[in-house]
Amino acid sequence: MKKGQLFIVSGPSGAGKGTICQKLVSEMDVELSISMTTRNPRPGEVDGVNYYFVTREEFEQAIQEGDLLEYAEVYGNFYGTPKKKVLDKMAEGKDVVLEIDIQGALKVRKEYPQGIYIFILPPSMTELRKRITRRGSDSPDSIELRLGKTLSEVSYIDKYNYCVINEDLEEAVARVKAIILAEHSRVSEQIYELIKNYKEEV
Amino acid sequence: MKKGQLFIVSGPSGAGKGTICQKLVSEMDVELSISMTTRNPRPGEVDGVNYYFVTREEFEQAIQEGDLLEYAEVYGNFYGTPKKKVLDKMAEGKDVVLEIDIQGALKVRKEYPQGIYIFILPPSMTELRKRITRRGSDSPDSIELRLGKTLSEVSYIDKYNYCVINEDLEEAVARVKAIILAEHSRVSEQIYELIKNYKEEV
Repeated sequence: MKKGQLFIVSGPSGAGKGTICQKLVSEMDVELSISMTTRNPRPGEVDGVNYYFVTREEFEQAIQEGDLLEYAEVYGNFYGTPKKKVLDKMAEGKDVVLEIDIQGALKVRKEYPQGIYIFILPPSMTELRKRITRRGSDSPDSIELRLGKTLSEVSYIDKYNYCVINEDLEEAVARVKAIILAEHSRVSEQIYELIKNYKEEV
Repeated sequence: MKKGQLFIVSGPSGAGKGTICQKLVSEMDVELSISMTTRNPRPGEVDGVNYYFVTREEFEQAIQEGDLLEYAEVYGNFYGTPKKKVLDKMAEGKDVVLEIDIQGALKVRKEYPQGIYIFILPPSMTELRKRITRRGSDSPDSIELRLGKTLSEVSYIDKYNYCVINEDLEEAVARVKAIILAEHSRVSEQIYELIKNYKEEV
């Protein structure tokens, strides 16, 4: 059976990676990687759907067992990507999409360099500033901090396989879909199986 | 301006690479590479459309000037891929598709390893035998020779970037299109230009 692949969709805050990933999941046969967290569920959040909600002890155990592709502490809560859950889905033939910030993607890359790394870029810094401002969740100072962070993090783009500029959402989604489809056609071990069959046929 | 790329569509005789290339040209903004030949034009063939028709002296000069990505002699006539014509189109921002047999693709790869190499495979040897037989241009002996050649040439697949199995033509074309689109999103020098602009904006 064909093994699934891991597609890491990453980029600066405001580039639109979340929206792109939601569209991928609804329009293609891919599954979103679900994070593990120690924070409490918010009303309406479901375990195993929005997050895997675990205790701090369970999270620390996962770290010690090497079962996290990456993790980080944010405001006293831990968040991480469960390795086994991802690998299990791939073994079942499912492609997995992991939406993650740039620092997280760099950590995942150390653990799983054979993933496909896609960098989502805004068309310009002016547009990025507009999008973050429109969101309304950041103060002017915090917006400038975010933009500065983007400028420094964008230099990690050479650690990625692909780069998609999110100017028009539909076009950006079409490009990421093309990347996923193209990666299915990579010359890989599975093709050697097919060729072996050829030889047995003749 | 965005530079074009060279996509080499190759594979055994009967895999369907010709039909796929014709569809690519009619459905996408790509140009087919036109071969140079010393053979005489057949009725209806137009210079610069079907082939570049040249004299033997002109062909030999092209060889000496290193202006051929590959060439071969078939039944006393020379056939080759003009390098400058391909590079000029790419410089104009056009993607170029080169349909070529496996031996030819391997020669092109030595001259131009940065091309994107796509191997078109038949779904099975049984199906390949059917297709060649249906064509009616080969004797039973010659069909077996072709199949034997396919079996040995298929081992060169690891020199290719992608492999597309042509079971259903429409699906195979969709896959090659996805490869072309995906390669446009490769992290490349052009992206570094964009990032430079970011820095100037802020």
